[in-house]
Amino acid sequence: MTAVVTTGVPLLADAVDAQGVPVTRVDWRPPMPGTRDDLATVAADPLRADANRRAVEAVLGVTASLVDVAPASEVLGLEAGQFLHAGPPITWERASGPLRGGLMAAAAFEGLVDDPEDAPARFERGDFTLEPCHHHSAVGPMAGVVSPSMWMFVLEDRASGRRTFCSLNEGLGKVLRYGAYEPSVLTRLRWMRDVLGPLLRRAVAGTPEPVDVTGILTQMLQMGDEAHNRNRAGTLMLLRDLSPALVSCGADPADVAEVLRFVGGNDHFFLNLAMPACKLALDAARGIEGATMVVAMARNGTDFGIQVAGTGDEWFTGPAQVPEGLFLGDFGPDDANPDIGDSAITETAGIGGFAMATAPAIVRLVGGSVPDALAATRRMHEICLAENPRWSIPVLEFQGVPTGIDVTRVCRTGILPQINTGMAGKVAGTGQVGAGLVTPPAEVFPAALARLAELARSRGAVTDLR
Amino acid sequence: MTAVVTTGVPLLADAVDAQGVPVTRVDWRPPMPGTRDDLATVAADPLRADANRRAVEAVLGVTASLVDVAPASEVLGLEAGQFLHAGPPITWERASGPLRGGLMAAAAFEGLVDDPEDAPARFERGDFTLEPCHHHSAVGPMAGVVSPSMWMFVLEDRASGRRTFCSLNEGLGKVLRYGAYEPSVLTRLRWMRDVLGPLLRRAVAGTPEPVDVTGILTQMLQMGDEAHNRNRAGTLMLLRDLSPALVSCGADPADVAEVLRFVGGNDHFFLNLAMPACKLALDAARGIEGATMVVAMARNGTDFGIQVAGTGDEWFTGPAQVPEGLFLGDFGPDDANPDIGDSAITETAGIGGFAMATAPAIVRLVGGSVPDALAATRRMHEICLAENPRWSIPVLEFQGVPTGIDVTRVCRTGILPQINTGMAGKVAGTGQVGAGLVTPPAEVFPAALARLAELARSRGAVTDLR
Repeated sequence: MTAVVTTGVPLLADAVDAQGVPVTRVDWRPPMPGTRDDLATVAADPLRADANRRAVEAVLGVTASLVDVAPASEVLGLEAGQFLHAGPPITWERASGPLRGGLMAAAAFEGLVDDPEDAPARFERGDFTLEPCHHHSAVGPMAGVVSPSMWMFVLEDRASGRRTFCSLNEGLGKVLRYGAYEPSVLTRLRWMRDVLGPLLRRAVAGTPEPVDVTGILTQMLQMGDEAHNRNRAGTLMLLRDLSPALVSCGADPADVAEVLRFVGGNDHFFLNLAMPACKLALDAARGIEGATMVVAMARNGTDFGIQVAGTGDEWFTGPAQVPEGLFLGDFGPDDANPDIGDSAITETAGIGGFAMATAPAIVRLVGGSVPDALAATRRMHEICLAENPRWSIPVLEFQGVPTGIDVTRVCRTGILPQINTGMAGKVAGTGQVGAGLVTPPAEVFPAALARLAELARSRGAVTDLR
Repeated sequence: MTAVVTTGVPLLADAVDAQGVPVTRVDWRPPMPGTRDDLATVAADPLRADANRRAVEAVLGVTASLVDVAPASEVLGLEAGQFLHAGPPITWERASGPLRGGLMAAAAFEGLVDDPEDAPARFERGDFTLEPCHHHSAVGPMAGVVSPSMWMFVLEDRASGRRTFCSLNEGLGKVLRYGAYEPSVLTRLRWMRDVLGPLLRRAVAGTPEPVDVTGILTQMLQMGDEAHNRNRAGTLMLLRDLSPALVSCGADPADVAEVLRFVGGNDHFFLNLAMPACKLALDAARGIEGATMVVAMARNGTDFGIQVAGTGDEWFTGPAQVPEGLFLGDFGPDDANPDIGDSAITETAGIGGFAMATAPAIVRLVGGSVPDALAATRRMHEICLAENPRWSIPVLEFQGVPTGIDVTRVCRTGILPQINTGMAGKVAGTGQVGAGLVTPPAEVFPAALARLAELARSRGAVTDLR
């Protein structure tokens, strides 16, 4: 049977179609400018195919279990004055408003300053250190600020013993991760430190089998969550799994009820489990020589960075974009900070913006239309190496989510990963202003490709441009 | 602008299409045999249009809140030896295996017999009475057996004060509602009577605002539940709403934990709230003269019956069909009892089989394909009077579920309501054997139409057959 693939001018497709030949219409675009030679080099790299196969297998082989909840000082060894943040490395001087606001809140929360407004001078003076969460096996949504007294979810891949970490979700509105630092933010953080964290730790310890975070993600994707900006079903399943041990742990019933109300009232609570589960999976592919799979996408509010399996821990960065979407109250595009947070680890693992087809109600939060949401998932398959059979989308006849962003496919098609995200106010202290859709800056992919090509050449790979 | 509606031979449609005229293709079928005169009479009934408008408004105006959990003896006034069952009225002699099995379990549970096997003789002798749940403002899934000591959800329409009732869901497998009566069934029923019911009552009493069952249904439909055979998200939201009061009610924490485990481990628990919420809405349209809207579809395992807004409490019945679907373990079609249960009240209200488009994962349980599920919802719009703006389906661009089955549209198109359902073993004591898809027997709709026509004629309506 003859089949014809057409691109560009639709007249040819129509003509062939009229002759009864099956036609597949492909939205062809030229490769990204300047990538021709590097694409040829990487395509010819003898390591590539097997490396990508191993990278996919490694990612899909990971299952994440919730094994502990503990202070960052204990599990990450953070000390007073040490702060983690979302995205690639950045200094206080280049930090955006919401990241500064989050750091100000955290400095006050740790008792390093009496008033958050006193913190900038201390950061400017270099009294405190800043490092990416990603450099400590951790991820953080939005500002992603972690300080020693914050409690962390501890996720483990039972097969390898590897662990990843993420702070506890504060809810919406005026919260640290969106850059707010008013007194209510600090009051909530103290309650999370004194009540929420310790009770969750006891509940996790008292649950006969560790909560299967990867399994909850499987279910969520059949329940209208895409696990980045919708985590409603996931949060409810976490409550279901932890609540029997929580009520039996001997804690004051009033505290238990308050924990149930806090978690049950925050549809985003599970995001902070989805994110480290995705990191745990993707980290399994780090450092596989020749692999062109993206293993991290992260933003600090100023820079957007990616890391790639075959290029070690190197960051390829460009300017973070301002999302397009829907705004809360009177806020508008001028109020929005550029893209921020480690939460794009969800898209890197094939959910979030990559799985919007399974969560069409998300368009009421991030904008766009239902057909757009379905199309986004289909489009992401074009730049991915695999489908994840564990995470399937019922409405697409149970097709697995597109998984393993391939730097070469992005460069060859010009199709950029689709991320959905919350938007922080660009002025420190504002909080959330909206939610929307965004992509990475295009240039990070040719930069990563160039490095992959350079490494291939250094191994003796030959570029065949015939 | 000219538009053309075509039926039958597609050549005409193609020809018109080729001329650039918008074409709507309709799957036209002849009316059901023998309905021509009655259709004409009812169409000419001057009451009809306004009656149906009022019926739709009445149904859509109801909101269901969970206001109590209490024994049937207390809220329904049931006395020893009184049993309710699903579907239209039936005698022991004509009762199917699963209904008999459920009644045998209930008789033993009430202490009327020592051994369930002793119960048939007592029923045959006429020692006990049988009445439909629907005659007591109640509904029951599958066998739908209610006896005085069973605890009931009490739902209330806050505006009118009307109430409906449903028993508590036992979970899957060997359970009374599927006709099982072995010792484990009775042990579970006793625990539900002694622990689950009383604790839920205290939780409901201690919850500041009554649980908004209609609102949970709105959310469920955005979370992959169609609220008949998928109630996973609904069950989790019920837990979320009740658990803070449950842990604060002063009960033994071990009992609280067991209640949380039982409800959290039974994805169908919310069905027994969805059903009375649907009945509460539909009962608002009962008795509206001239209205052709179906207000109940119910099966007792032998007969399938419908009730219609404009015909009072009269049942129109025909033989219940055996569903087509998927079977558990070694069970097959020969093991399945005909359709049973009041749960088709969900389809009558526009969810369940009518909302399968929003729950494509349901095909893994009831059979069929994802496109079938999407098509089923679209097809049901053809026989319904309205869409429910409160219950919308994201993937269909937030279209409201098809609501208010119109007897005249069913007769005119021959399209039968699509029900999804569990399947009980036809031998008493078996339990569940599968789940599948089923429709009412076609003849109940012409029978209801004939009665509507008769009533219209008695009011002086003129049949215009020109």
